[in-house]
Amino acid sequence: MYKAKIFVQLKASVLDPQGKAVTNSLHNLGFADVAETRISKYIEISIDSADEAKAKTEIEQICDSLLANPNTETYNFVLEKQE
Amino acid sequence: MYKAKIFVQLKASVLDPQGKAVTNSLHNLGFADVAETRISKYIEISIDSADEAKAKTEIEQICDSLLANPNTETYNFVLEKQE
Repeated sequence: MYKAKIFVQLKASVLDPQGKAVTNSLHNLGFADVAETRISKYIEISIDSADEAKAKTEIEQICDSLLANPNTETYNFVLEKQE
Repeated sequence: MYKAKIFVQLKASVLDPQGKAVTNSLHNLGFADVAETRISKYIEISIDSADEAKAKTEIEQICDSLLANPNTETYNFVLEKQE
């Protein structure tokens, strides 16, 4: 069993409206020091692949086909072997 | 300037319906090896605090007052000094 720890983030050039809204809320709450907020998804998948190479290929296919929007997002992940 | 890298995750005892939906979708797409999916938020905040102790206190207040729902979520973060 492998655990994939996947980060799906907006490309740097893409405006993050949710992050902008959080920054504004924090300013309104009195946190004037906050300069920028970026909000991303963090996804953990437990996958029962035969070996690490297969797990890596499957997680790439999963990110490409479901988790990340190729137009606006990038992803990266690390794989950990579980006992 | 400090960058806080914050993870906001559902408590282990709380059902993750979004993760469940992704697991089902992945099974339908043919990824039968996927056992579990948990979806969390990953938030980066750039904050211009005077020192690291102040930044840490502010980020804790920010998580408690806006980012995490204390009933269902936990958070943890790391602070990095930026040039």
